[in-house]
Amino acid sequence: MPAFSTLAEFADLLRAAPAADAAAHQAAAARNWQLTKPPGALGRLEDLALWVASWQGTGRPTIKAPQVLIFAGNHGVCAQGVSAFPPEVTVQMVANFQGGGAAINQLSKTFGAAMAVHALDLDRPTADFTQGPAMTEAETISALITGWNAVDATADLLVVGEMGIGNTTVAAAIAAALLGGTGAEWVGRGTGVDNAGLARKARAVDAGLARHRARDPLQVLACLGGREIAAMAGAMARARVLRIPLILDGFIACSAALVLHALVPAALDHAVAGHLSAEGAHGRLLAALGKEPLLSLGLRLGEGSGAGLAIGVVQAAVACHSGMATFAEAGVSDG
Amino acid sequence: MPAFSTLAEFADLLRAAPAADAAAHQAAAARNWQLTKPPGALGRLEDLALWVASWQGTGRPTIKAPQVLIFAGNHGVCAQGVSAFPPEVTVQMVANFQGGGAAINQLSKTFGAAMAVHALDLDRPTADFTQGPAMTEAETISALITGWNAVDATADLLVVGEMGIGNTTVAAAIAAALLGGTGAEWVGRGTGVDNAGLARKARAVDAGLARHRARDPLQVLACLGGREIAAMAGAMARARVLRIPLILDGFIACSAALVLHALVPAALDHAVAGHLSAEGAHGRLLAALGKEPLLSLGLRLGEGSGAGLAIGVVQAAVACHSGMATFAEAGVSDG
Repeated sequence: MPAFSTLAEFADLLRAAPAADAAAHQAAAARNWQLTKPPGALGRLEDLALWVASWQGTGRPTIKAPQVLIFAGNHGVCAQGVSAFPPEVTVQMVANFQGGGAAINQLSKTFGAAMAVHALDLDRPTADFTQGPAMTEAETISALITGWNAVDATADLLVVGEMGIGNTTVAAAIAAALLGGTGAEWVGRGTGVDNAGLARKARAVDAGLARHRARDPLQVLACLGGREIAAMAGAMARARVLRIPLILDGFIACSAALVLHALVPAALDHAVAGHLSAEGAHGRLLAALGKEPLLSLGLRLGEGSGAGLAIGVVQAAVACHSGMATFAEAGVSDG
Repeated sequence: MPAFSTLAEFADLLRAAPAADAAAHQAAAARNWQLTKPPGALGRLEDLALWVASWQGTGRPTIKAPQVLIFAGNHGVCAQGVSAFPPEVTVQMVANFQGGGAAINQLSKTFGAAMAVHALDLDRPTADFTQGPAMTEAETISALITGWNAVDATADLLVVGEMGIGNTTVAAAIAAALLGGTGAEWVGRGTGVDNAGLARKARAVDAGLARHRARDPLQVLACLGGREIAAMAGAMARARVLRIPLILDGFIACSAALVLHALVPAALDHAVAGHLSAEGAHGRLLAALGKEPLLSLGLRLGEGSGAGLAIGVVQAAVACHSGMATFAEAGVSDG
């Protein structure tokens, strides 16, 4: 039996999710104060360690089982000429993930993360949202459940990424629907469209906004798509319920996060922003989510790659916090 | 027999150091173009992989043996009340490094780096540079040689860090001597001095600048000190000669790098900036070196910690470059 069978039940589960563990946060903060370094000298690494502590519910956190989940979907809106790559690339890249040849495979291996890829009905693209709703309610629920069930309850850190030719256009449409603004303000070059392609993306988003007036976050998700974005939202929500700390990836991942955030303001309390993508409007999306990115290295690949890279930063933060000696242990004068 | 026995011989070795391998860079760039991602989508990770390739001299680089070297020294200028911590902390922290309890130990372990610490005559601080030259020429040469010899010729990536109560004041003095400006423009809060301490730091730097008129980079190093900064310069120079890629750390490490850069403009061609420190003038120092930092997470600890954190980013970049499938291998359409 699935954890939920309606959109309302999904929203209820998210609303009922437990908060961070304040006692664990306090214990970790007390320890942080005693470590052999000037107070605050590890900067954001200190905040990260306390954040992991509070969500893992321990004053001495560890990262031993990070999980990377990749969801793939295809999009009817590709008919509007919104991508530099043909839709066949989605299924080809899923094979590449399965064969270990993509960037996210190397990043997962580098930082010891378990990676899994879930392809969602690639032979059955969502409907073109300029013509009608991308997904039915049943399809939306099914994709949310796929994401929900994909999370390993024993994971101690989660990255959620995606692959889906056309999905920067979908993400831009979701952002515009939930935050306002025109297509031109939210679309970017994605995998590398030219100026004409960029204009087609903006027009497609504007057409979608004109056609779908719903502003309920889960209705927006259903109307604009796509399956992999719904699955990402489902996985992020499950991590919130399980109190697994989450690293957000780029523009598309953040559009999924935005759906949750618009639905329940505390939905992303367990999340940090892994990086600032080079995809134009990602910074604006992060600002709306109230998240400051850890990295800014010009990535614009998707696949969870920016968040995957940030796993190393979080591991380092936790290793410093849990492994360093205190002033008393090391016999160091504390100033 | 040491590699050099005069400052002039050291400078000659640095001048004669080989350039990066242009053919390896070209081979790596050709491979990068074929990898299963849109061109440029991995942002600075792509540049990093090509940079490592060109210095390792192979189109398929690896990071299997990163080395972290920490040099420690004590400073006569501490008599001017320039630090929030007493000078005894230097030797205490060396024991902490040796016992595995410092931040850099955890970072080295996290990213699989071999770490070694070299304490330079901690019971014999350099002279107070407000009163006279910090080091004799012989002491300077000896410290350069310590750094030079500390580099493992089989390392494939190097981080050079430091510990030395009082050394942000020394670094500020070196920066001011070589780049111009007053003490107030270059000093920062270091381990956490108050406003009165900050003013004392600025006065000490100004007194040092007034006393020592030498502008030859190695004479500046000798006059202002200290031993660990000279050792860092020696290690960085050796890495340049051995073509080992180098990650620069924060303000103090960059003051050592600045000495080399002022001596030989190409001395840091093998280096990237690991991070932007929270120590006030670090950004200005990086700009003078022409380096864009990889990370900016508010660290201000020293110990090579910012560069140590960046090891993970460089490893990830190299792993993507060398491990990803090409479009042809993966059967992915390349747009």
